[in-house]
Amino acid sequence: MLRNDQLDQWDRENFFHPSTHMGQHERGESANRVITGGSGVYIEDRNGNRLLDGFAGLYCVNVGYGRQEIADAIAAQAKELSYYHAYVGHGTEASITLAKMVMDRMPEHMSKVYFGLGGSDANETNIKLVWYYNNILGRPEKKKIISRWRGYHGSGLMTGSLTGLTPFHNKFDLPLSQVLHTETPSYFRRPDLDMSEADFVTHCADKLEEMIAAEGADTIAAFIGEPMLGTGGIVPPPAGYWNAIQAVLDKHDILLIADEVVTGFGRLGTMTGSAHYGLKPDIITIAKGLTSAYAPLSGSVISDKVWQVMVKGSDEMGPIGHGWTYSAHPIGAAAGVANLKLVDDLGLVENAGTVGAYLNEKMKDAVADHPQVGDVRGEGMLCAVEFVDDKASRKFYDPSRKIGPAVSAAVLKQGVIGRAMPQGDILGFAPPLCLTREEADKIVDATRAAITEVFG
Amino acid sequence: MLRNDQLDQWDRENFFHPSTHMGQHERGESANRVITGGSGVYIEDRNGNRLLDGFAGLYCVNVGYGRQEIADAIAAQAKELSYYHAYVGHGTEASITLAKMVMDRMPEHMSKVYFGLGGSDANETNIKLVWYYNNILGRPEKKKIISRWRGYHGSGLMTGSLTGLTPFHNKFDLPLSQVLHTETPSYFRRPDLDMSEADFVTHCADKLEEMIAAEGADTIAAFIGEPMLGTGGIVPPPAGYWNAIQAVLDKHDILLIADEVVTGFGRLGTMTGSAHYGLKPDIITIAKGLTSAYAPLSGSVISDKVWQVMVKGSDEMGPIGHGWTYSAHPIGAAAGVANLKLVDDLGLVENAGTVGAYLNEKMKDAVADHPQVGDVRGEGMLCAVEFVDDKASRKFYDPSRKIGPAVSAAVLKQGVIGRAMPQGDILGFAPPLCLTREEADKIVDATRAAITEVFG
Repeated sequence: MLRNDQLDQWDRENFFHPSTHMGQHERGESANRVITGGSGVYIEDRNGNRLLDGFAGLYCVNVGYGRQEIADAIAAQAKELSYYHAYVGHGTEASITLAKMVMDRMPEHMSKVYFGLGGSDANETNIKLVWYYNNILGRPEKKKIISRWRGYHGSGLMTGSLTGLTPFHNKFDLPLSQVLHTETPSYFRRPDLDMSEADFVTHCADKLEEMIAAEGADTIAAFIGEPMLGTGGIVPPPAGYWNAIQAVLDKHDILLIADEVVTGFGRLGTMTGSAHYGLKPDIITIAKGLTSAYAPLSGSVISDKVWQVMVKGSDEMGPIGHGWTYSAHPIGAAAGVANLKLVDDLGLVENAGTVGAYLNEKMKDAVADHPQVGDVRGEGMLCAVEFVDDKASRKFYDPSRKIGPAVSAAVLKQGVIGRAMPQGDILGFAPPLCLTREEADKIVDATRAAITEVFG
Repeated sequence: MLRNDQLDQWDRENFFHPSTHMGQHERGESANRVITGGSGVYIEDRNGNRLLDGFAGLYCVNVGYGRQEIADAIAAQAKELSYYHAYVGHGTEASITLAKMVMDRMPEHMSKVYFGLGGSDANETNIKLVWYYNNILGRPEKKKIISRWRGYHGSGLMTGSLTGLTPFHNKFDLPLSQVLHTETPSYFRRPDLDMSEADFVTHCADKLEEMIAAEGADTIAAFIGEPMLGTGGIVPPPAGYWNAIQAVLDKHDILLIADEVVTGFGRLGTMTGSAHYGLKPDIITIAKGLTSAYAPLSGSVISDKVWQVMVKGSDEMGPIGHGWTYSAHPIGAAAGVANLKLVDDLGLVENAGTVGAYLNEKMKDAVADHPQVGDVRGEGMLCAVEFVDDKASRKFYDPSRKIGPAVSAAVLKQGVIGRAMPQGDILGFAPPLCLTREEADKIVDATRAAITEVFG
């Protein structure tokens, strides 16, 4: 076994980590952590620490760590056939079975699934399909994509453009010109504190209408949104939001892409966020919960309406010029089949609803009255606490004070992982869907203690 | 076990395959194939067919199928820890070890590796890093990327733009405006048949110089190329090409991205194509051979020169706003460690050189004189045969005759998989690096028989 100091040296000399301060990491000024194992909602590191992972990795280990049913399925697939491609009609029993299982869990009007690796590449596929769709329909000008400020849809060039968070744009020349951003669907962030929730929904729909009118509906191809905002702050939509938005999109023949990378397969206590909020999307993005991250796999789920145009396209143009070598990778597919079965067997969708509601209720009870807590919110197994400099006037902290990271660090000292969301002083939780009430209590207790430590 | 007809139905009803004719697949007009296992260079399907895979999946199963050493490493990692993220300095023993092993195999001047999932997303990362690099250096206008016609760099929006093949552009509004394409480095395709190879190299360098002069060197950020063209036709560069190109790039301070997704880890009989042809790249893209496709994993390998600017960037701007949830996925990392060890243990880099040379020599002997064979070419474990309507005048077939697919189908009837390359009538082979001389003979025999069947 390698020594810890050897691993530390190799790490700092060779490894370019995502979302990391490169200079501090290389110079040894910031902590690194080598994870060695996990069980249920707990992970363990090489220094013997055992932590309650209140963020399920990156909202993805939905079934929890250490599930041997999935490990066994991966092992069996690896021994039998680790890889063959899915081009030109090729598949494996695992990939075909998973395609069937996915479609059984999606809204009735959806037709097919294209498998990718992660959420970013799935949204990349989606935008390609939307452009192809309008080209085949003879509408070459209908290409712009409307996203929302604070939406999160990936960190590639196009997908980072769809993302409406400035840390993903700065110094990368994003967003690209084909992407527009409309209002953040966060009632807490309403432009006028006197607005009612219903007023705010009308405001969001009006702003969208204004943007479409200004650009011309014949230039707008699609609207992309997470059913509930994730990385942008874990924010449930205001009541009636999706009804209002969907009416605008229908009126202007604009496709709806529901990014269900976080919400798909149970996180809101329902199989999809689309079902949860009554959306009728044309394309659904899936990833994380599809395999609980045991192996990389994502998907673009296409409605029958879109699929019929794909068919027309191939009848006119031949095979589609789109493919990843690792599309429908057998290891990912085997992990997905075992994972979705386990989600059913353990009743995790229901548990996300019930224990998630418990977590959110307890969190409100514990910290909502604190003068520096501006908002406590969530839905299903998602919960966030947002901090403010002044509550009555909803005055945010200066970002340079790094309040969110300070609270997150204080939570970690309590043995619990919560995530400082990247924009705003927001502590987020997205635990594995197998969380128990006792474990929910630990998250709440750690949060209360951390708030006391940071703010007094 | 599922019945074949059940799988067939599920496949056609639910599964959106890459690079497939969607209409024909759904309607059952085109074959599908369910792969069940493999061993060495052979794969097996559910109907009991055993095929010699002369393309190693999609040039990726470098160690061959059924390697239990890699399957065992995947199984062990899955049981221990299937997932944790690599954000903010997190890692696993597997991912850190692999980072060290990768950097030990890359040219001396390279510094760090960022792990992705596949070649497309790795090139996406590369372009983001190139833009970031020039923004940090205060050169906001230096952003355009020069690629080559017939280059292949992925099929996303940016990466499909880098790709210089029209089937990946048509109906997708590609290439994006930031990408330019220069001459295809194929002597066989030289614009004037009377040009010597040296003349053609001068021509390629001159064309590049002209493009840079026309656009302005201060607007050109990078040049991307495969050391040897892959999907564009499996074409070794003309002698002296890279020296000439690199001199132009150096003169204008343009970064060189070497896309080694196909050539990395041994395919040319050398650890990298960069070493093979004497390139000094600023960024190297790796994927396929990194894990032999046993699990999805790719990488962006960054030179010390580029890394120093990344460090400067994070010191000025904080952590980089770039990351995939599945970056450095433990399953992929474990597969990569076991795979690179196996490549060493089996001496596959050397075997690719020797048996690859044998395959290319035998193929030339067998088919080069045929009147419809315009070119037989290759290097290491890559070999291609290109068909022409008239040899003396190098007259190509009308694409609608689909000569390449016809030859590929005839090869398949001989029990051998070769790939009809997507643009031009080109039969390509990229077998596993463990190919034996006897297996090389089978590929050559199948090719000769197929040519006789198709052309007489």
